[in-house]
Amino acid sequence: MLKQVIAKIKNRFPAPEVHAHCDGPCGVYDPASARITAEAVVSMTKKILDLEVPDPSDKAATIAYQNTLSRYIAIKEEQAQKTKEDLLILWTDYFKPVHLEKYPDLHDTFWKAAKLCSACKVEVSAEHANELMDAVQKIHNMFWATKDRDVSWYKAS
Amino acid sequence: MLKQVIAKIKNRFPAPEVHAHCDGPCGVYDPASARITAEAVVSMTKKILDLEVPDPSDKAATIAYQNTLSRYIAIKEEQAQKTKEDLLILWTDYFKPVHLEKYPDLHDTFWKAAKLCSACKVEVSAEHANELMDAVQKIHNMFWATKDRDVSWYKAS
Amino acid sequence: MLKQVIAKIKNRFPAPEVHAHCDGPCGVYDPASARITAEAVVSMTKKILDLEVPDPSDKAATIAYQNTLSRYIAIKEEQAQKTKEDLLILWTDYFKPVHLEKYPDLHDTFWKAAKLCSACKVEVSAEHANELMDAVQKIHNMFWATKDRDVSWYKAS
Amino acid sequence: MLKQVIAKIKNRFPAPEVHAHCDGPCGVYDPASARITAEAVVSMTKKILDLEVPDPSDKAATIAYQNTLSRYIAIKEEQAQKTKEDLLILWTDYFKPVHLEKYPDLHDTFWKAAKLCSACKVEVSAEHANELMDAVQKIHNMFWATKDRDVSWYKAS
Amino acid sequence: MLKQVIAKIKNRFPAPEVHAHCDGPCGVYDPASARITAEAVVSMTKKILDLEVPDPSDKAATIAYQNTLSRYIAIKEEQAQKTKEDLLILWTDYFKPVHLEKYPDLHDTFWKAAKLCSACKVEVSAEHANELMDAVQKIHNMFWATKDRDVSWYKAS
Amino acid sequence: MLKQVIAKIKNRFPAPEVHAHCDGPCGVYDPASARITAEAVVSMTKKILDLEVPDPSDKAATIAYQNTLSRYIAIKEEQAQKTKEDLLILWTDYFKPVHLEKYPDLHDTFWKAAKLCSACKVEVSAEHANELMDAVQKIHNMFWATKDRDVSWYKAS
Repeated sequence: MLKQVIAKIKNRFPAPEVHAHCDGPCGVYDPASARITAEAVVSMTKKILDLEVPDPSDKAATIAYQNTLSRYIAIKEEQAQKTKEDLLILWTDYFKPVHLEKYPDLHDTFWKAAKLCSACKVEVSAEHANELMDAVQKIHNMFWATKDRDVSWYKAS
Repeated sequence: MLKQVIAKIKNRFPAPEVHAHCDGPCGVYDPASARITAEAVVSMTKKILDLEVPDPSDKAATIAYQNTLSRYIAIKEEQAQKTKEDLLILWTDYFKPVHLEKYPDLHDTFWKAAKLCSACKVEVSAEHANELMDAVQKIHNMFWATKDRDVSWYKAS
Repeated sequence: MLKQVIAKIKNRFPAPEVHAHCDGPCGVYDPASARITAEAVVSMTKKILDLEVPDPSDKAATIAYQNTLSRYIAIKEEQAQKTKEDLLILWTDYFKPVHLEKYPDLHDTFWKAAKLCSACKVEVSAEHANELMDAVQKIHNMFWATKDRDVSWYKAS
Repeated sequence: MLKQVIAKIKNRFPAPEVHAHCDGPCGVYDPASARITAEAVVSMTKKILDLEVPDPSDKAATIAYQNTLSRYIAIKEEQAQKTKEDLLILWTDYFKPVHLEKYPDLHDTFWKAAKLCSACKVEVSAEHANELMDAVQKIHNMFWATKDRDVSWYKAS
Repeated sequence: MLKQVIAKIKNRFPAPEVHAHCDGPCGVYDPASARITAEAVVSMTKKILDLEVPDPSDKAATIAYQNTLSRYIAIKEEQAQKTKEDLLILWTDYFKPVHLEKYPDLHDTFWKAAKLCSACKVEVSAEHANELMDAVQKIHNMFWATKDRDVSWYKAS
Repeated sequence: MLKQVIAKIKNRFPAPEVHAHCDGPCGVYDPASARITAEAVVSMTKKILDLEVPDPSDKAATIAYQNTLSRYIAIKEEQAQKTKEDLLILWTDYFKPVHLEKYPDLHDTFWKAAKLCSACKVEVSAEHANELMDAVQKIHNMFWATKDRDVSWYKAS
């Protein structure tokens, strides 16, 4: 039944033969971009949760705290958004029907990862930030497997 | 079998109960944004194909032609990219597992539409630009149906 | 006297005959873009005013509140800015001296609308957000009237 | 009659007393930003017109020429857009009804200048680029006059 | 010894003869852009420090305060970032090995100025904001001296 | 003598003790971002040089060629700019006076690399694109050495 679905999908895609030059390994795709920004989401989430609220009567400390908190939230937002964009570029431009055949949970994986990016914006959740890292690692493995390359996973932080 | 797949997908999504406030009709989503930019893609594609190449010996006309062509290509690129982004916001943020149950081709529809946006950048193809408009209209119908609203489809151009 | 002013304005505009290809209905302009972002301004303003301040002793709730508030303010800012940009594109690129003749309050309408966008950033005012929606609706009516088209006004939210 | 129009405009503006803190000279506005980008428009226009078309049989020279031409057009576009944005910030945020009373051609001046920015994108016209510089200089004079300051006009290029 | 270092630097730079057309004073560079945004950093820093915290029981005033504070922090961030970008364009594109010979502290000056931009984001420090203004003024003097022009330093605010 | 220069530099830097929390390995920096975009510059440069010019009488092929060439030039520009930005973040935010002591050619290395980014925009030069890759690799080695980590260098393409 899955084969039929895939056949149907392939039939409905715009003229793949036109894009033949993209089927080869000529583009520069690397999930490392998404990994770096996802690490920043984890780091910012952790730093927000670790911030110590100063005594409200200490005005200088309170302003410094608010400046830091505001910036950390904005950076978390920006980095989660970049992670989402970089992952979606892989989904929309790199992965092709032939890969879907090999990875039937391709759509589900990316939908879940993209929704995790949004969850990391909406919430300050170390749990969801870590789940996002796991999702990026899963995509890292999936991606390099399609290229038959063994690129090791590491974290910068 | 599809039901099993959907059940599996739902099981693997991040804590939907946390996002309960988003399940209601509180957000502002409207496929009209994507429709407007897709129209611009159609229009730019058509204008590029209709441009008349001036006589190379007429330097002023040649420079004007190159300026116009360069801008049209850049605008087509930008508008196709915006269409892609606006469609993907619907896919990643508005549509939820409950909608997937109702529209089993949800992922396929958005993947195809996103790949059409990329195709409209890579090529100067009136055919693909029109297919993109059709894909946006399909999403327009799907979207408003999930809200039980009858919003009529129109084009600005 | 108004006619004289308009005649004077027309005399001072850069070579309209050069832009003859733009005088026709070839461009893709649609006030729906500004309507969607203005709706987001109204929605965000309302959500900010409706947020419940948690007990300061509940650290987790306080962080969640600050994250949400910070994001809502940033989204309000961004959407008000986009509304302003989309309205000003209509004013600077779509509307031409011939329209000013028909709508002598054209400049006033757009100046007021743009200043309302700024007011919606500076303040958290449901009143000004609603006035912005009214201004966008007025421009919607004015715009489609210049095209002799009857496009109905609706809201996505 | 103009006084009546102005009175009418003032009546219809959103609660100016709310913005009292902005009526003083506390913001940082300076038409120099628009002057710098307008100079870039003039410079890019001139450079495009001065480019020498290489012999089509010289492939290396032709590619270099196309790279340069493409970039100059894109930079002209970007700088004209920035000029437009910086001028419109002055119009929508700095200038207030009281200034309109003093400069009845305020709206006309900015509309004309904004349309010149668009013309400088659409065309490769040294004439319109120079007219844009003149428009920016007029706004420079108008702006500093409202602040009773004598800031001299200069060009960086 | 410094001369040797400079000679070494010059030897290792990419083919300066290729860029001969840039060696002349044809580009449009002006430290005024960085000066305007640095003034905004000073202004925003001062405004943040001067904000009066409302009584927490006054909900309307508290929301207005949070909206204002959030925006001021975001504007400070944005303007400090723009200052950094504009300064670095001067360092990477305008200044050339021949200038380094004349100003041996060129790298140090820009490194310090860029780090001050970052410090003005991280902190709410009037002292560092003023030091940034001084750094921009130093660069203003250095820049115009390389062009043998006497452009007077002024502030818009 | 170099030690004196460094001592002087350290004396003139803004309050390093304030930033003590940044001296630890808490930030997320990774030269892989710059490596990915530099690879794209190399790839785009190569593709531009490899494009075959169609017969001018074949209008469809000529339009396709111009669309492709225009996009490749724009992508090269964008990726070179991103490379520059990512490298400069390392230079201005990650590297500190203590690193300069260890790497006296730190400034020179980054200045050269940034100028190579600009050269890769201005030209279509495989040689300079490759030199940019080498510069990024040198920075990769320098960066990980400061962290006493052995992260292997690889290319995605």
